[in-house]
Amino acid sequence: MDVLAELTGSVGSIGYGLAAIGPGIGVGIVWAAYIQATARQPESAGLTRTYAFLGFALSEALALIGFVVPFVYGT
Amino acid sequence: MDVLAELTGSVGSIGYGLAAIGPGIGVGIVWAAYIQATARQPESAGLTRTYAFLGFALSEALALIGFVVPFVYGT
Amino acid sequence: MDVLAELTGSVGSIGYGLAAIGPGIGVGIVWAAYIQATARQPESAGLTRTYAFLGFALSEALALIGFVVPFVYGT
Amino acid sequence: MDVLAELTGSVGSIGYGLAAIGPGIGVGIVWAAYIQATARQPESAGLTRTYAFLGFALSEALALIGFVVPFVYGT
Amino acid sequence: MDVLAELTGSVGSIGYGLAAIGPGIGVGIVWAAYIQATARQPESAGLTRTYAFLGFALSEALALIGFVVPFVYGT
Repeated sequence: MDVLAELTGSVGSIGYGLAAIGPGIGVGIVWAAYIQATARQPESAGLTRTYAFLGFALSEALALIGFVVPFVYGT
Repeated sequence: MDVLAELTGSVGSIGYGLAAIGPGIGVGIVWAAYIQATARQPESAGLTRTYAFLGFALSEALALIGFVVPFVYGT
Repeated sequence: MDVLAELTGSVGSIGYGLAAIGPGIGVGIVWAAYIQATARQPESAGLTRTYAFLGFALSEALALIGFVVPFVYGT
Repeated sequence: MDVLAELTGSVGSIGYGLAAIGPGIGVGIVWAAYIQATARQPESAGLTRTYAFLGFALSEALALIGFVVPFVYGT
Repeated sequence: MDVLAELTGSVGSIGYGLAAIGPGIGVGIVWAAYIQATARQPESAGLTRTYAFLGFALSEALALIGFVVPFVYGT
C-alpha cells in the first residue's frame, strides 16, 4: 500500500472544532452580559434569567449540531 | 489500493463548522444586548423582544443554511 | 484504484462556510445596536428601524452571495 | 513505500486546537465580567458567582467535547 | 523511497498553534479587566485577585491541554 502522508483521522473532528469556536465565544458573551446586568440591577436578575438561558442554549446548540453533522455527511 | 492519506470524511463537515462560527458569536451578541437593555429599562422589554428574536433568527439562519449547503453542492 | 484521500464533497461548502462568518457576526452587531438604542430612546425606534433592516440586509447579502458563488466558479 | 510528504499525526489534534479557540476567549470574557462587576458592586459577588462558574463551565465544556470527539469519529 | 513534497513534521504543531489562539486572547482579557478594575477601585484588588488568577488559569489550561493532545492521538 502506498501512503502519501502519514496523516490519520476524520475531518469530522475539524468540523466540530470549527463549529465550537463561535458558541464558545457566544456563550461567554451571554453570561458576561447577565453577570454585569445582575451586578448593576440585582432586581432584574429574575426578569433576564430566562433570556440568559435562552441565549446560551441557542448559541450552544450550534456546536452540538456540529457534533452530529459528520454522521449526516459521513465521517 | 493506493491511499494518499488516511483521512476520511466529507468536507461538508468543515463547511458547516465554518458557517457556525459567525452565528454562534452573533446570537450571543444579540441576547447579550437584550439582557443588558432589559436590565436597565425593564419597561422596554416588550418593545425590543421582537427585534431580539428577529436578530437571533436572521443570524442563526446562516448556520442552518450551512447545514443544507453540502446537499446542494454534493456531500 | 488509486485513492488520494478518502475525502468527499465540494469545496463550495467551505467557501459558503467562510462567507457566513462575517455576516453571522455583523447581523448580530446591527440588531444588538438597534435593541440598545430602542431601549434607551424608545421614540427613536421608528427613525432607526430603516437602517437596522438596511444594515442587516447588506451584511446578510454577503453570505447569500457566498451561497451562489460556487455555481459561478463551478461546484 | 512511496511517501508524498513526511507529515505525520492525526487531524484530531487540529480539531482540538480549533475547538479550544472559542472557549479560550469565552472563559476570559466571563471572568473579566465577573471581576469588573465585583470591583464595582462588591455586594453582588455572591449573587453573580453562581453564574460566573456556570458560564465558565458551559463554555469550557465545548473544548473538552473537542478533546473526546476524535475518539468518536476515529483518530 | 519517493518523496513528493519536502514537507516534514507533525500536524500536532498546527493543533497546538490553533489551541493557543483562544487562551492567548482570553488571558489578556482577564488581566485587562483586573487592571482596570483595580485602578478604579483599589480597595477591591484583594477581593478580585482570586478570580483573576482563577480565570487566567482556566483559560491557559486549554492551551496546555493542546500541548499534550498530540501524544494522545499520535504525533
